[in-house]
Amino acid sequence: MKKTSTFTSRLKSLRRTHEKLLKRKNPVDTTWYNGLYERYQYPVISAAHVPLEWRYDFNPKTNPFLIERLGVNAAFNAGAMEWNGKIIVCVRVEGWDRKSFFAIAESANGTDHFRFWDRPCVIPETGDPDANVYDMRLVKHEDGWVYGLFCTERRDPKAAPSDQSSAVAQCGLVRTRDLKQWERLPDIKTPSAQQRNVVLHPEFVGGKYALYTRPQDGFIDTGSGGGIGWAFCDSMENASTGQESIIDRRAYHTVNELKNGQGPAPLKTGEGWLHLAHGVRNTAAGLRYVLYLFLTDLKNPARIIAKPQGYFIAPVGEERVGDVSNVVFSNGWVCKKDGTVLIYYASSDTRLHVATSSIARLLDYVKNTPADGLRSAASVQQRLALIQANAASAKKRKKS
Amino acid sequence: MKKTSTFTSRLKSLRRTHEKLLKRKNPVDTTWYNGLYERYQYPVISAAHVPLEWRYDFNPKTNPFLIERLGVNAAFNAGAMEWNGKIIVCVRVEGWDRKSFFAIAESANGTDHFRFWDRPCVIPETGDPDANVYDMRLVKHEDGWVYGLFCTERRDPKAAPSDQSSAVAQCGLVRTRDLKQWERLPDIKTPSAQQRNVVLHPEFVGGKYALYTRPQDGFIDTGSGGGIGWAFCDSMENASTGQESIIDRRAYHTVNELKNGQGPAPLKTGEGWLHLAHGVRNTAAGLRYVLYLFLTDLKNPARIIAKPQGYFIAPVGEERVGDVSNVVFSNGWVCKKDGTVLIYYASSDTRLHVATSSIARLLDYVKNTPADGLRSAASVQQRLALIQANAASAKKRKKS
Repeated sequence: MKKTSTFTSRLKSLRRTHEKLLKRKNPVDTTWYNGLYERYQYPVISAAHVPLEWRYDFNPKTNPFLIERLGVNAAFNAGAMEWNGKIIVCVRVEGWDRKSFFAIAESANGTDHFRFWDRPCVIPETGDPDANVYDMRLVKHEDGWVYGLFCTERRDPKAAPSDQSSAVAQCGLVRTRDLKQWERLPDIKTPSAQQRNVVLHPEFVGGKYALYTRPQDGFIDTGSGGGIGWAFCDSMENASTGQESIIDRRAYHTVNELKNGQGPAPLKTGEGWLHLAHGVRNTAAGLRYVLYLFLTDLKNPARIIAKPQGYFIAPVGEERVGDVSNVVFSNGWVCKKDGTVLIYYASSDTRLHVATSSIARLLDYVKNTPADGLRSAASVQQRLALIQANAASAKKRKKS
Repeated sequence: MKKTSTFTSRLKSLRRTHEKLLKRKNPVDTTWYNGLYERYQYPVISAAHVPLEWRYDFNPKTNPFLIERLGVNAAFNAGAMEWNGKIIVCVRVEGWDRKSFFAIAESANGTDHFRFWDRPCVIPETGDPDANVYDMRLVKHEDGWVYGLFCTERRDPKAAPSDQSSAVAQCGLVRTRDLKQWERLPDIKTPSAQQRNVVLHPEFVGGKYALYTRPQDGFIDTGSGGGIGWAFCDSMENASTGQESIIDRRAYHTVNELKNGQGPAPLKTGEGWLHLAHGVRNTAAGLRYVLYLFLTDLKNPARIIAKPQGYFIAPVGEERVGDVSNVVFSNGWVCKKDGTVLIYYASSDTRLHVATSSIARLLDYVKNTPADGLRSAASVQQRLALIQANAASAKKRKKS
């Protein structure tokens, strides 16, 4: 008798706490400013947001201690899109067992009150089952389908029995009309041994499907894979690309010297395709992932026409620490009709955040921020020019 | 009209916040005690301390959204000295573009209210331009010049095109009379393939310039470079050293088993040259950097006469996390006439802190702390001796 009442009161408390979290307002973080985007006080989604029904067995007979039966470890890297007037994100949810899966969460404004749909996405397997799937890029293509491109990992068949880590990463592919029924298509074939961060361009280019890729030689090492690639294919059924050309090359002593990859699909603006990407460098404490922006030609999305120096978003405060510390990553953003841009970025492979900006601000940043000078002395000259311009305009204001 | 007033009010708010930070008092952290040095509540310098004029374009025509145009990512490892009755630090400032440069900040007491001078230091390049420069050691040498020795990195000319990370590190050299005009001299030549943490001894030794070095075989690996080196050269113009001898060797299972390097130039005391150095070990989460002290002979600064076991400063609290976590590093300290020592140490490649002590306390620590026993059982014996001495003196006090 008492046991049941303990169970019931614990469950009530769990539900209350969970509901409170889902209803929490997420105001702009006013302690932070850079003019370019707003940060928010809380993550928009974390492991704690995942429905209790997905984690707890609510039957006191089979779960008398109200144990979290199938725990969730993290909820992070999410694809994103507008859907029936709401904002949805397709989240990478990771269980205690390290396996990730996808689940849709929805919000009216895109900055708070995200709620997961009833069930996680059921992604069919191919003949060669995925060990893990993650980082879905959702794209509404002009062919009418919504495509989901994601990373699928399988154990490297050539790995020695003593090596239980090596994997082969490929681009998995699904399409859907309702975000509920997912049709699995064969993995996308490319000339590279491994693929990560493959993203579908939302429009046909020269009558073909166009893909951003990130060719790499090994599972972690990009090897000769020199940056963000670009390739075409005729069909998304049995998709197989031609040669990849590199559109944004890695460069020494920049934010992307070690690795880089396309984030979500680019946004179409009046002045070009706006791209969000991640760049990686090595440090004495492991890899550091930051986000950067660039702009490509409207007619040739593979031609960069503006690229500011440095990073756009780097980890701040609690974002710095998590399952994989010192990482920000994005595979989803949304441009609303009024030009507002919602940028979904995850921190340290643990939780999902939003930053908000506008097409006008992002274009101003991308077009008017100087390019990387590649040398310390060039950076000092950029800064001196800014200081001198500020001094001159201060003098002018004083005079007038 | 409305746009301008938004611009103006934002700028006012930015300036108010910035001024508040610069005027913030920095009291001793009274929650922390070890008798050896004081810690302080706040970092003395961070990215947010860098002048707004160096980061924002204040012209509403060219920067209508008041975007941070040339962001600053971090402000850390700083050289330090007394200058016209004030304390100055020569800070490593790192932009969003990853390039570092040097900038002087000044404070009356050395523990708070640091303000940057009007402009960053303009360091001329040599015929082989630096990709990056960092970690300046400032030394007022008895020859009358103020020298700045710093690390200069250039992409490894032998690196494959797919390797955009490998670099060659060398010791860059400038001299100045006013900390404003910097005369660049040729990089210091040493017998080692790469050099980091090269520090000029402030006095002639046997009529020659004397240098602390840290010979290493590769960019990250020290290889056979077995510790803090010591070498002489005849002139600082076209400086070229003879053979390096190792004065403080790396040792198994100590705080400096993987790497170590001289911090700032040593302080002259009545009992010897007091040295501050960093030691590095490897962990599952990357390298860990701590600081340690040792004392060398007044007549032969290369001969260690006292070296306590263990570390002097390790990261605490928020110091543990940053762009490169688990790091404390120092390349600047100041001894005032009254014997006060201001120790400038950076945490996790992100921000600069101060710790305060005195020559008397530091000498007591260095001379009277037992040397490293190199074995667990030896450490237990050191501790038992301490416990027994405490018990004996307690007994004695009780009797009397």
